[in-house]
Parts: sequence; C-alpha cells; structure tokens
Amino acid sequence: MKLANYVGGTWVEGSGDGAPLFDPVLGDELARASTDGIDLSAALDYARRTGGPALRAMSFAERAQMLGKISDTLAANRDRYFELAQANSGNTQVDASIDVDGGSGTLKYYAYIGGKLGDANYLTDGALERLGKDEAFQAMHLLVPLDGVAVHINAFNFPSWGLWEKAAVALLSGVPVLAKPATATALLSHAMVKDVVEAGIVPDGALSLICGGARELMDHVASGDAVAFTGSAETAHLLRGHANVIRNSVRFNVEADSLNVSVLGPDAAAGSPEFDLFVREVAREMTVKAGQKCTAIRRALVPAAVIDAVTDALADRLGKTVVGNPRDETVRMGPIVDKVQQKNVLDGIKQLQAEAKTITGDGSFEPVGADPEASAFVPPTLLRCDTPDEADVLHKVEVFGPVSTLMPYDGAEQAYGLAARGGGSLAASVFTGDDGFAAEAALRLAPTHGRVLVVDEAVGKSSTGHGIVMPQCVHGGPGRAGGGEELGGLRGLRFYHQRVAVQGNSGRLHALAEGAAELTV
Amino acid sequence: MKLANYVGGTWVEGSGDGAPLFDPVLGDELARASTDGIDLSAALDYARRTGGPALRAMSFAERAQMLGKISDTLAANRDRYFELAQANSGNTQVDASIDVDGGSGTLKYYAYIGGKLGDANYLTDGALERLGKDEAFQAMHLLVPLDGVAVHINAFNFPSWGLWEKAAVALLSGVPVLAKPATATALLSHAMVKDVVEAGIVPDGALSLICGGARELMDHVASGDAVAFTGSAETAHLLRGHANVIRNSVRFNVEADSLNVSVLGPDAAAGSPEFDLFVREVAREMTVKAGQKCTAIRRALVPAAVIDAVTDALADRLGKTVVGNPRDETVRMGPIVDKVQQKNVLDGIKQLQAEAKTITGDGSFEPVGADPEASAFVPPTLLRCDTPDEADVLHKVEVFGPVSTLMPYDGAEQAYGLAARGGGSLAASVFTGDDGFAAEAALRLAPTHGRVLVVDEAVGKSSTGHGIVMPQCVHGGPGRAGGGEELGGLRGLRFYHQRVAVQGNSGRLHALAEGAAELTV
Repeated sequence: MKLANYVGGTWVEGSGDGAPLFDPVLGDELARASTDGIDLSAALDYARRTGGPALRAMSFAERAQMLGKISDTLAANRDRYFELAQANSGNTQVDASIDVDGGSGTLKYYAYIGGKLGDANYLTDGALERLGKDEAFQAMHLLVPLDGVAVHINAFNFPSWGLWEKAAVALLSGVPVLAKPATATALLSHAMVKDVVEAGIVPDGALSLICGGARELMDHVASGDAVAFTGSAETAHLLRGHANVIRNSVRFNVEADSLNVSVLGPDAAAGSPEFDLFVREVAREMTVKAGQKCTAIRRALVPAAVIDAVTDALADRLGKTVVGNPRDETVRMGPIVDKVQQKNVLDGIKQLQAEAKTITGDGSFEPVGADPEASAFVPPTLLRCDTPDEADVLHKVEVFGPVSTLMPYDGAEQAYGLAARGGGSLAASVFTGDDGFAAEAALRLAPTHGRVLVVDEAVGKSSTGHGIVMPQCVHGGPGRAGGGEELGGLRGLRFYHQRVAVQGNSGRLHALAEGAAELTV
Repeated sequence: MKLANYVGGTWVEGSGDGAPLFDPVLGDELARASTDGIDLSAALDYARRTGGPALRAMSFAERAQMLGKISDTLAANRDRYFELAQANSGNTQVDASIDVDGGSGTLKYYAYIGGKLGDANYLTDGALERLGKDEAFQAMHLLVPLDGVAVHINAFNFPSWGLWEKAAVALLSGVPVLAKPATATALLSHAMVKDVVEAGIVPDGALSLICGGARELMDHVASGDAVAFTGSAETAHLLRGHANVIRNSVRFNVEADSLNVSVLGPDAAAGSPEFDLFVREVAREMTVKAGQKCTAIRRALVPAAVIDAVTDALADRLGKTVVGNPRDETVRMGPIVDKVQQKNVLDGIKQLQAEAKTITGDGSFEPVGADPEASAFVPPTLLRCDTPDEADVLHKVEVFGPVSTLMPYDGAEQAYGLAARGGGSLAASVFTGDDGFAAEAALRLAPTHGRVLVVDEAVGKSSTGHGIVMPQCVHGGPGRAGGGEELGGLRGLRFYHQRVAVQGNSGRLHALAEGAAELTV
C-alpha cells in the first residue's frame, strides 16, 4: 500500500517506490510513502487561496466547533488508531493513549477555549491608548489571521498528537494547514486525516497532508506563511536557515533537541515522599514510549548524599519493567521506532558511556515475544556520572530512547549550573518538600527552560508529570531546544496572527474593537 | 579624531585608520571609527557576566528610574546633540528633533510605564489555570529576563532614536545592551553613550558601544542573547541566517526594507479635508529627514478621479520646499547622509523611472548654501505610474530618499491588492471621511502591515503622522519589512524575557505570583 497525499483538495499518490514504513516489533513492511511528483508549490497555493479565505470567513466559535467535530471523529475511531499505533510505532496501550487521546484531547480543549471567543474572527490585544493630548486620536492593537498557510513538519514519535496539537491552534486561528508527518510513522496521521476529510468537517483546502519527503518545500513558502517544525536540531537548522525562509521573514517555530533535567531537592531524604515520587517519575520518563519523548528526563540530578539510594531504587524499578511486544499484556515498554533509530540510540549510549558508568541495560537482553534481530528494542539504560561538572557529552548529546543519566550535586548552585549546561531545554522538574527551594529553583531554571514542574507530596498524585505536554501551558524551550513556543492556551494563537497597531479616531477604534474578541494572554 | 569603543567597562580605540564619517553638506571628514582589534567575544561576555546580573538584581522601578536619568542627561545636552546631528547627518531642526527628542522621549515613556511595574524583577503572564480535577495542582506562566546580552545593530538614519528606543526596552527588561550604530553617523551615538557613562547612571557592563564594523560579532552570540537589527534587507538576511545564530536559536528581530503605502479614500474629493491632509502628509514624509525614514510613504494610492488634482497639489507643495544647508534658516529639507547613499538614491530613482514618469525632481537642481559636488543632496522626487498593476520595480525597490510614487486605483479592492504588493510593510495610512471604508481598510491592510494610521478631519491635527513611530505602538512589519516587532509599550518587554510555564502546588504558584509584576499585554 502506498499512502496517498491529500493536496489541492484531492488524494494523489506520489510516484516511484516510496520509502517503507515498518512494524518495529515484527519487522514487517506496512506501507510506503512518497511525495515524488507532487507539485508542492501548487499544494501550498491551494491552501492559501482556497482554505485560507474559507477559514477566515468563519468565526472563532465556528472554527472551535469544527475542532470539536474533528475530536469526535477521532474518538469514534480510537480503537483502530490504537491498532495502527501498535503496528507502526510499537506502542503499548499507555503509549498509544498519550499520542491518540493526547491529540483528540488537545482538539477538545481548543474547541472549548476557542468557543468562548464567540462570533468574532479577529482579536484585540490590549485596550485603546492615548498618544497625545487629544483624546480623539488614539491607538490600539489588533491581531488578524496570517493570510498564508501553516506548514507543520512533525516528528516520528507523535504521529497523532504532533499533528493535532499544531493543527488545532492554526485552524482555530483561521490559517489552513499543510502537515507533513515523519515518514516512519505516517500510517496513523494518514488514517486520521483521511477520516476527517471523509467526514466533511473542514472546508476545502483547510487541511492538506503530504506523506513522504518534504523535498524542496521550503523553496515555496512565502511571507504570510508560518512553519512549525518538530524534529532533529540538524534538520531544524537547515530549514530555518533556508535562504527563502530568511528572505521572506517566514515565521518559523522550532522544537528540537533537549537535555531535560529533573532535580531531586536537597531536602529529600531517602524514603521521603518526594524521593519516591522522583524515582517513579524518572523511571516512567525512561520507559513510556521507550523514552522517545522530546520532554523525557535525560539528566537526573540528585543530592550527593542520596545518589546511591536513588541508584538502587531506580535500578530495582527498571529491572522489573517488562520490555517487548506490546501485544503481550505483561509488557510495559515497547521498541524504538525502527532499526535506524535503534542504531542511533545504541551509538548514543556508547558516547555517553565514555563519561558515565552503566547501571542498567548492559549485558544480555531479550525482548518478550519478539525476535531481537527483526525488532528494534533497546533495554532501559540507566547511567551514572559522579563528576558531572567535568562531563561534556552528557550535557550535549540527546539519546532519543530509554536512556537517562544520574548525576550527584553538592548544593543548589551546582544543580542550577548543571541544568543550564543543557544549553536550553523544554522541561525541567523539581521534587522538593521545601517551599523556599521550590520558588528559588523555579526562577533559576526559568531562563533556560520552557516549562518547570515543581512536585511535592501534596500534588504527587495529581501532577500531570514531567514529560506530558498540557495544552494550557506553552511547549518549547530556548537555545538547543529550538527557541520556539507552541500551545499555551490562547497564547498559541499569536503565532498564526499578525499584530497590527491601528491609530486613528477613537470612535472608529471602538467600532473595530466591538467586532473583535479580546485576547488577554 | 577616532571614536573609541566602550567595551569591558572601558573606552578602547580600534586599530588601523578606521572608516571616515563626513559632513554631508560641507563634505568635511568629522571623525573615524574602527572596531579592529577589539575582542568582541570578550565584550559580549563582559556584558553577560557583569551587566546582566547587576540589572537583574534591580527592580523594574529601579531600572525605570535609570531610564529617566538617561533621558534627563540627554535633555541636558540637547543643544550639543543638535549640532552633531546637523554636522554628521545634515539634519534640519525638525529632523534633529525627531531623532534626539525621539530618543529621550522614548526613554521617558518607558521610565513612566516601567515605574508602574514596581518592586518586582520578573513578570506573570496570565493567571493560574487548573490542569485537572485537583485544584491543588495548577499552572501559570512567568516571564524572566534573558540571561544574555541584547545586541542592537542600528541604521544610519536614527543615531539617537534607534539607539535609545531599543536600549530602553532591553534595559527595562534587565538585559544589558551592546549597541552598534551605523558607522556613517556614529558621532551622535558615541557622544550620547559617553555622556551617559560619565554620568554614572548605568551599572558596569550594562551598556556597551562599538563604533565601526560589526566584523564577526555573530560568531559570538549565544543562546540567551537577543539581536535587534535595523537596516538593509541584504545585511539582515546575512546576519539572521548566520550559522551560529541559527544553531543557538538566538532571538533575532529585523526591521528592514519597506514599501509603505498611503491610501486616499474613494470618498475624498479634491479640496476635501482628507484630500488636503493626505497631500500634506505625503509631502511631509518625502521631505522630513530627506525621506530617509524606514516608515516613509513610498507609494501613494489615490482614486483615479483625483490623481491629476493630487499630482498638481503635491507638485506645488514640493516646489516650494527649500532644500539645502540646514544652517540656513529658510531650509526645510537637508541632504542624503553621504555620497554613497546619494548615489544609491539616484540609481534607485532611475530604476523607478523605467515604470513611472517624473513629476518633480528632474532637471536642474541647486541646493541652497551648499556645493553640489561636495554635498549629497537629492531633490524631492515625485513619480507617477498610471498602470500600477503592471508595475514591478515600484512595488519592490525601496529608494531611501525624498522619493515617492503616485498611483491611481479604481475601487477599494485594487487599492488593497496594490498595498499587499509591497510584500509586507511597516506602516500604511488611510485618509478617509468614510467610517465604513476606514474599518474595512484597517482590517484588509492589517495582514501585511505592522501599523495602520487612519486619518479623518477630526484627528487631522492631533494625528502623530504616518512616519512617526510612537513607543505605545508596535513597530515592525511582516515579510519584506523583516517580520519583527519593537516597542509597543510593555509588549516590547517580551522580546527580552523567557516565558516559562510553571506547574505545581497552587500555594507555591501564588507565592511566586505575589513576587512578580503583571504583564497584561
């Protein structure tokens, strides 16, 4: 089967053999994907000229309703999507839920908050302001939808959530979407878009999909377009630095590599509630989706006094994690997405091992119910480095699998310094019962992180977790993490709107404001 | 005299001969500037390590007070600055006021609005939000100052305003500034920074200055830094696309070329108040600072029915404009900044003339009180193109001098289409007595403009004008204009802050919020 591309309002197969998509557990080829021969320039143009005007003519409430219907369509087909996620991504039920339910849940959330914006189709940003003595002449700021197309380039680890968390915000903003899922796991994205298109929920041209290589897509983006990219830093740099992107000031959001930290507070003694919550969270972040989450904990910082206790507790927990074929009900962790990525992870572990000793994951390993040769498994691999200040690779190389490194620290300043060595990350977490340390750590980690989760015993159960991206919160991080921001509730709409200062007669400004919804974040 | 650089907390002369700065009226060399031999990496590092912590330790109120003192220092030396502006930029009194008073006024404005943020040194962005059923676990967003340096690269036309409108926002944010004025007119920037440094107003490392080439400055910027560039699109593309900038996700704001339009409404008959206001504004935008404003009106769109009347009225007005040595009190328009730019302007006019006929500016021209050979004058040059839909160069080539092109339109749709042909501009203006057209035009011009001024008779006198950048309003534009945003009141602080989502115990979040000031735009 070759996955078709949905461009120009129709399904078109790419030419040639295409690239294969595999089952990472069984090793079977599931489908092929190709964009060869597809006119990408025409695809973008169709979205701009057909989808854009149709979406912009709709009110926020109407667009929100559309998101709600997309979410309902996805929910109705949930079981089938779980099967695809298991087949093409080797997902366990928990993994598939994060991706599939995460996608439909984010759509539902934006349907809810978008609906409250009502009948308007543009926004005010702040109130009227005087510019001089005469009250008749004032200024205000409006946000109007970009008149281009939103190009969404997604990563292999979230074929559903990545697609919909980006599309929800763009579509609510009135901007048509051309999505390019990662080829390796495009099966699920393709099925979902097909279902949504067939349900007739979105206007013609509002949602396009290409399955396969992005080819020369960046040659065709224009002023008024916005690109949101999730993936490797290397590819991000190539695309963001593309001459056409630079020349046309195309908005470009990047979410890339990240050496996220989790910090166990200096107050946390072995066996304290925060100690236990921390151990559980590090283990969970290593094993959920086999550690293939851009937000996963890569560096775990613990007070030197408890490093041995943490090492033992984590090794114990990871040792009990059943790894293998997710079709087996006892399995808690699945494979890496494919053999290429498996090799990347194993090579990465070797790099880290030059600076850290191996606590778990070394030696013999047999996945449950899967052929080690045909499949792409890597065991949970816990490393430990007792001289983290001297380390280099550990703070630089993101190994995208079930891999994390324990590091001891002496005093909060060292912990803050080590966290910053990541060069900018998506998420940090802090486990502490000490309110003073909690406040200080949040502020000190803030300049180099997009999100800081602070956990104490009281929120241990209700915490949404270190690695889970909630649509209410901005998602992105500075520096190495790409410098971007997605989601964040209505904040996310700004990326898809042009802000304009309007100066003039205050009566006219009031009339314009009355036709708008207010954006207050 | 060679202008020294202020780096590492000390004044250092660059090596070699340096580049000359001229008097564009008399042709005299005034000074030289060189950054050769200056360790730019060390200069940035000193700002980061010394200026940054000092500024971040200050509250918003303290930083605002500092801006007020800078403004006062500038005001105290105003007469001397006017002399420098006349000598190095050929400014008239009006020109110098826009630059010099514009700089001190913007500082004063930020001192005022910054003072209201009080004792805090970080900001909240929105309120607490629940993430699930448990009220104890919530999220909020904070804005903390970037921990790097603000690199400000400015254009030759505003050696004062450009310097201070950028510095005011960065310093109020708690981010140290390294400013690089354009070499051609660095005399004024240098004098101002020298006065401010000598007055002991800013902490050590908070304000650095390099006079001369930027050399390999972009090799040394890092994650946490922010670059704000004003100047040519060509240079902007080089710097923004620099591998180190891309690799480190360095924030990069660009304000570049712009083919700004002014539109006379379909309702405006010859002799109507809006007709007269439009003619006055186009003439003013052409002649103030000899048209060397990035916001100046380059394309003037008028209803076909009144194109002849507008042509005559403008030609009449421009014919009366006395052009020459600003030391002569009858002079209303000065020179182009130097001989190189004069040649660029004259070459640009030739390009435009391939698509437009020349109404004024052709033929013999003698500047008052200046030698045409030694000086750099260009007369006010009004062009007219009666087939603007077919034009190409007129919508693409920004001639940075006293040059504008009249174009007739039939119906509002054609006017909107022509405006968008600029590919993204800083500012548009609309002169109309028709409220319906005013509202429609504001919304239709919004996607491709950073600012839209709408003028009717009632605000004809109090309007701040098409080309004047008010600190209350965002300044920047999409596409060709660079895709950036500066100023906009407190909105401008966002560029110099990292936004972080903090998740945790709501009691802890409330405590963090209590220590912060609220950012509501």
